Amino acid sequence: MKLYITSTSGNAWKVRLLLSMLKQPFETIVLDPDRKEHKAPEFLKLNPRGQVPVLVDGDKVFWDSTACLVYLARKLGGEQWLPTDAAGMAEVQQWLALSNNELHYGLQWGRGKKIGIRAIGDYEEYAMYGRNGLAVLEGRLKNNEWLACGRPTIADIACYCYTSVAPEGGFDLAAHPSVAAWVKRVEALPGWVKRV
Amino acid sequence: MKLYITSTSGNAWKVRLLLSMLKQPFETIVLDPDRKEHKAPEFLKLNPRGQVPVLVDGDKVFWDSTACLVYLARKLGGEQWLPTDAAGMAEVQQWLALSNNELHYGLQWGRGKKIGIRAIGDYEEYAMYGRNGLAVLEGRLKNNEWLACGRPTIADIACYCYTSVAPEGGFDLAAHPSVAAWVKRVEALPGWVKRV
Repeated sequence: MKLYITSTSGNAWKVRLLLSMLKQPFETIVLDPDRKEHKAPEFLKLNPRGQVPVLVDGDKVFWDSTACLVYLARKLGGEQWLPTDAAGMAEVQQWLALSNNELHYGLQWGRGKKIGIRAIGDYEEYAMYGRNGLAVLEGRLKNNEWLACGRPTIADIACYCYTSVAPEGGFDLAAHPSVAAWVKRVEALPGWVKRV
Repeated sequence: MKLYITSTSGNAWKVRLLLSMLKQPFETIVLDPDRKEHKAPEFLKLNPRGQVPVLVDGDKVFWDSTACLVYLARKLGGEQWLPTDAAGMAEVQQWLALSNNELHYGLQWGRGKKIGIRAIGDYEEYAMYGRNGLAVLEGRLKNNEWLACGRPTIADIACYCYTSVAPEGGFDLAAHPSVAAWVKRVEALPGWVKRV
């Protein structure tokens, strides 16, 4: 397998984490966003959205971090990381959606404004949305070790990355003690790897 | 089953469409957003995000439109609307992600600014993102009747709703003829229902 990433992409980190936890060897191709390599014609043939991550497995190509997570979980993870029964799969999907919405457009875009990698948009708008996401996570994790199905799933991987770096965006994890404890639990999973 | 909606929610429309196409009877509970019924304590117990749709099936409760689509497809749709093999499921997931990103935060938020239901944010920022989404759809649909797996799946349902109303947001579907033709194909599927 080949994984296209940029060195700083949190969405690519999600896929690197699962590949490592599943002990799947893979080749990494690092694109340079400063040279717009993610918008180059050759790369747009793999992903017309012009974003990392992209996962290539033989003749199959998948863009979007959640699609990559679903592919790896189904191909290599049995029922553990993504169950196939209706209720279990939908429970995981809820948290993939939170990661795609409040955590990405809230926590991550707020962090982007704060650390200067996002030029447009309004910090307070993003921050308000991100704080909603943290409150939803806290509500769930107050009485549960993991987000879905009572065990680590791709729901945890998808929500972990931008939550763990949220303090760089001015979000206080100490005010969300169950979230802070869950971040540490994810980091203690066998195969966890650092951001860069 | 019970489905919580607001009369104008496009995300709730996605779930109504699939319920109808699957011929699943359900009770509709219409919340009034002007009276903040989606932020009332009783509703927040069902969905801490304070959003519709919410689907209730016996003692199971699911929030988020993509999670509701996954639940219904897996429970009632066999392999048709969401296959369980790794590649097929990931292919569908890619388009659920597009619907959660470019189509929601681009097309729909742009439309929200245009028709006056979204107070904050910048139209051009949303519109640029939405146009990217339309271009990705057009690229796929130029040579494919459906978004994933060569047949109608929840990928089409998820992407259809905010695309079909995008002209209200100033997006020209005539400039994307394959998208416009696909919108008509979705509307010809047995069980299709109108927005309101």
